[in-house]
Amino acid sequence: MFCWLSRLCGELSTPTRRTTQLIWSSAARSMVLSSQRIPELSSFVARTNTCGELRSSHLGQEVTLCGWIQFRRQNIFLVLRDFHGLVQVVIPQDESAASVKKILCEAPMESVVQVSGTVISRPPGQKNPKMPTGEIEIKVKTAKLLNSCKKLPFEIKDFMKKTETLRLQYRYLDLRSVQMQYNLRLRSQMVMKMREYLCNLHGFVDVETPTLFKRTPGGAKEFVIPSREPGKFYSLPQSPQQFKQLLMVGGLDRYFQVARCYRDEGSRPDRQPEFTQIDIEMSFVDQTGVQSLIEGLLQYSWPSDKDPLVVPFPSMPFAEALASYGTDKPDTRFGMKIVDISDMFRNTEVGFLQDALSKPQGTVKAICIRKGAKYLKRKDIESIRKFAADHFNECSLMGKLRLECADLLEARGVVLRDPALFSFLWVVDFPLFLPKEENPQELESAHHPFTAPHPSDIHLLYTEPHKVRSQHYDLVLNGNEIGGGSIRIHNSELQHYVLDTVLKEDVKLLSHLLQALDYGAPPHGGIALGLDRLMCLVTGAPSIRDVIAFPKSFRGHDLMSNAPDSIPPEELKPYHIQVSWPMDAETERAHR
Amino acid sequence: MFCWLSRLCGELSTPTRRTTQLIWSSAARSMVLSSQRIPELSSFVARTNTCGELRSSHLGQEVTLCGWIQFRRQNIFLVLRDFHGLVQVVIPQDESAASVKKILCEAPMESVVQVSGTVISRPPGQKNPKMPTGEIEIKVKTAKLLNSCKKLPFEIKDFMKKTETLRLQYRYLDLRSVQMQYNLRLRSQMVMKMREYLCNLHGFVDVETPTLFKRTPGGAKEFVIPSREPGKFYSLPQSPQQFKQLLMVGGLDRYFQVARCYRDEGSRPDRQPEFTQIDIEMSFVDQTGVQSLIEGLLQYSWPSDKDPLVVPFPSMPFAEALASYGTDKPDTRFGMKIVDISDMFRNTEVGFLQDALSKPQGTVKAICIRKGAKYLKRKDIESIRKFAADHFNECSLMGKLRLECADLLEARGVVLRDPALFSFLWVVDFPLFLPKEENPQELESAHHPFTAPHPSDIHLLYTEPHKVRSQHYDLVLNGNEIGGGSIRIHNSELQHYVLDTVLKEDVKLLSHLLQALDYGAPPHGGIALGLDRLMCLVTGAPSIRDVIAFPKSFRGHDLMSNAPDSIPPEELKPYHIQVSWPMDAETERAHR
Repeated sequence: MFCWLSRLCGELSTPTRRTTQLIWSSAARSMVLSSQRIPELSSFVARTNTCGELRSSHLGQEVTLCGWIQFRRQNIFLVLRDFHGLVQVVIPQDESAASVKKILCEAPMESVVQVSGTVISRPPGQKNPKMPTGEIEIKVKTAKLLNSCKKLPFEIKDFMKKTETLRLQYRYLDLRSVQMQYNLRLRSQMVMKMREYLCNLHGFVDVETPTLFKRTPGGAKEFVIPSREPGKFYSLPQSPQQFKQLLMVGGLDRYFQVARCYRDEGSRPDRQPEFTQIDIEMSFVDQTGVQSLIEGLLQYSWPSDKDPLVVPFPSMPFAEALASYGTDKPDTRFGMKIVDISDMFRNTEVGFLQDALSKPQGTVKAICIRKGAKYLKRKDIESIRKFAADHFNECSLMGKLRLECADLLEARGVVLRDPALFSFLWVVDFPLFLPKEENPQELESAHHPFTAPHPSDIHLLYTEPHKVRSQHYDLVLNGNEIGGGSIRIHNSELQHYVLDTVLKEDVKLLSHLLQALDYGAPPHGGIALGLDRLMCLVTGAPSIRDVIAFPKSFRGHDLMSNAPDSIPPEELKPYHIQVSWPMDAETERAHR
Repeated sequence: MFCWLSRLCGELSTPTRRTTQLIWSSAARSMVLSSQRIPELSSFVARTNTCGELRSSHLGQEVTLCGWIQFRRQNIFLVLRDFHGLVQVVIPQDESAASVKKILCEAPMESVVQVSGTVISRPPGQKNPKMPTGEIEIKVKTAKLLNSCKKLPFEIKDFMKKTETLRLQYRYLDLRSVQMQYNLRLRSQMVMKMREYLCNLHGFVDVETPTLFKRTPGGAKEFVIPSREPGKFYSLPQSPQQFKQLLMVGGLDRYFQVARCYRDEGSRPDRQPEFTQIDIEMSFVDQTGVQSLIEGLLQYSWPSDKDPLVVPFPSMPFAEALASYGTDKPDTRFGMKIVDISDMFRNTEVGFLQDALSKPQGTVKAICIRKGAKYLKRKDIESIRKFAADHFNECSLMGKLRLECADLLEARGVVLRDPALFSFLWVVDFPLFLPKEENPQELESAHHPFTAPHPSDIHLLYTEPHKVRSQHYDLVLNGNEIGGGSIRIHNSELQHYVLDTVLKEDVKLLSHLLQALDYGAPPHGGIALGLDRLMCLVTGAPSIRDVIAFPKSFRGHDLMSNAPDSIPPEELKPYHIQVSWPMDAETERAHR
């Protein structure tokens, strides 16, 4: 299936980014690999063929094409574009075809036309080997202007170079670019393959769960939706967590959903208020089972223009990730691990090292940069020193420093992170609870309160809960968390103990879930993959906004339609709410 | 694919409804018809097999099963259930297996257990031909209690007979019923087949569009979502209409999405505040193209346990539907058309008929009920007369009367509407505009303002707009509207004229769409199918709530979790809203 996708996107225009070049070079390979049926791209519509599919094998055929005028040369040739590619159209010059000539010569660039004619061979010397349709051209008989285009604010092919604000404002023009076409089509295809794997190969049931739900206690990141009952609100859930567990209690056995989720984080770069996750839950499964499923899923849906994935993915305990990479999402495409060299300095007399080692849990750590002396310049060393000083009291310093060094080395020409390499990693054995930031005497869930404790640590739950490891697992790709899940608590008493005694939560708010666990809940577990982030890494896009058709700006605005927008007070009345306008500084001062 | 689905659901327990009986009788046929691979149902999990799949061919195999205790007989037999079916387990009686016996005899009904043992043949005379696994039983060696079940508020198998409130409150128990398992699994499978048809066979791109959008002007049925900017709100769209059109302008060519949509209609029976539609849009397509696509889509995804669909579906102009069936969604499973018999009574002297005919557009209409005299009793005639009197001034009276008569006839044993018959119908040639109810001098869109006028009526747009027919089409199934769509306006000037001059709308609010049409918008059209309603008709369920995993009550409540719910005022602060509590009658009176 990826075969035609790569082919159609590989030829639209000059690619501007590395990823697209990768697609070009591997298009031939993926065409051979793919055995799936090529979809009919011209069924039900006015064209007989797409612009991009025409080859010498079509010579002599009468075709009707629909597309956009990409380019016109001396009123003799015209390049017509559709989503599938480009084709050269010969504008007739004889008197009898004056009206056709007029249409094709007068239509502005990016106008939409329909042409009918014959596929002919290009004259000798005029073939273009760089263009997939470069052996042929269309001898036009009739032409129809379907829609004329006004002067654009910029040229389509330069679009990626424009500011992102402009791209978001005219998103429908940005979507015509080869990159956006490729990204959205690849996303659609990968998700389709995932569905085939889950639904057709492994009997998963695609169940839609509600997005108008009840607010999670303390769910500060949940959008609220006023209802027509005074003071009563729905909220948009951050994930279908409760529903997927209830589906297991309901005996659905294997659930998945490409689920829309919502998180209100205010303005944060490269986050979206709504996002999509591949949401999965299974009964009678353990950690290994979920991991194998996901490995199979990604292997099956992996684009055929990339190297096939090797499974199983390696696995690393949380503690090791922290010690060796200084983060719970290590980028394992390169080494440069963090090494504890405290012992070497135990007996040193260097003051600041002694000072450090004398503190509780004081350590001396190092990252070895091979040939660093050769590649790094004095100002690089200086910037590393400054970076370390700036982040000194953050425990993630070493992890950040490792990535900073990698950036510096790559800036000096060392290839550390191969862009064609996809390095998956399971991070496991997370702590079940963490001390609360605002009050370290109290504990909060490291992930969520439904996560099951590690079987070998369960006895610690009642004595030293902070030492309990969980059955949570994260999937990391090239240093990015792209998924996470856990085996859940299926025992009502244990769940009650965790919520009530350990976390001091109001159990009444989750009484429906506790009750469900009492009525024959099977052991179960699951995972969610962040689709936007995954597609971003797969396509090599610089931002998740490049793999979403209509993303919001980092401030959460739709720059095209201007959402969010004002609403007249009378339209808020049915929802029994009114706006509390913040007093501006002036007014406030006057009131003092 | 439907093969295993029918098989697994056909055996869970005694079905209570006609539909399920239909499934039983056709299970054998669909098993033969289906050529698709049966999914692996026990991959990645603790069981080796499902309960429901075991047959004589498994004799001698060592199996591990996980399931719910459905039934226990004299501490000797136990019936274990999973989503796939039932199997008989023999409880060991010898001393050495005392612990296994204890577990299996003491666990309450609906507890979850794991058993391992050997598949053996049932002794002669004990085989149960009514049970798909009735030739075998499991000789248990080990057993594990995975979760004990507390006393249920009712028995699972009686669940469908309970009140709907109880079913919604304990939805996770209701989901264990054979009907809900069948409905949700069939829904998943049908949608999967639709995706295969659209994505793999016809090159459609599955694009996710935002649900945090801008409010439609006057969109009284749109939920609002306060943002963190004072007075600015998102809204949840009723459909991805604008986005799908913009995707066409963006050159996506063929879009589809299984789209979540939202409509706040307050309390209305058999409506849900969130619902799902199969949303489709194509470039360079005409009405026939969209209709053929949908016919192919439904034919391809139609359950194999039902008669295959015959295409093309018949088509009927709106005016004929109204004249012959008294509705724009005629149930064409039976005749009894409305006949205009005015001419027969032109010269009559019967006063009330003369009176009616003398009025402008006064008519006399009739419905012929064949053998009505034989089947209908005096009180039926009386109830028809009363019904007519009660609805006299509604123009849809004749349509309602026709259905009322059908109900009466069926109550008397006449089979008018074959439950196995699926009668699809296209209704076409709708008016483009309708007079506004509150001010009939003004016009409003019959469907939405983006609908294109009928090509042969386009000249009327500037002179007699109320006479213009549209390129809108509805898909009707057994008297229910299950889909609707249109060819859209792709010309910016025409769209501006319709919005501004005809509809008197504020064009500024749709300036982004008008601008998009100016920048090379291709001709395009599309459709949306209501998935919930379609699944309701396909499964023969009495309510759309039976084809949705977690529906809201008719008042829009989630009875399980108690949503919508109150939110403390401080959690509303970030959204700059406060609740306007309605004054109760007492307080109001005191203030007068």
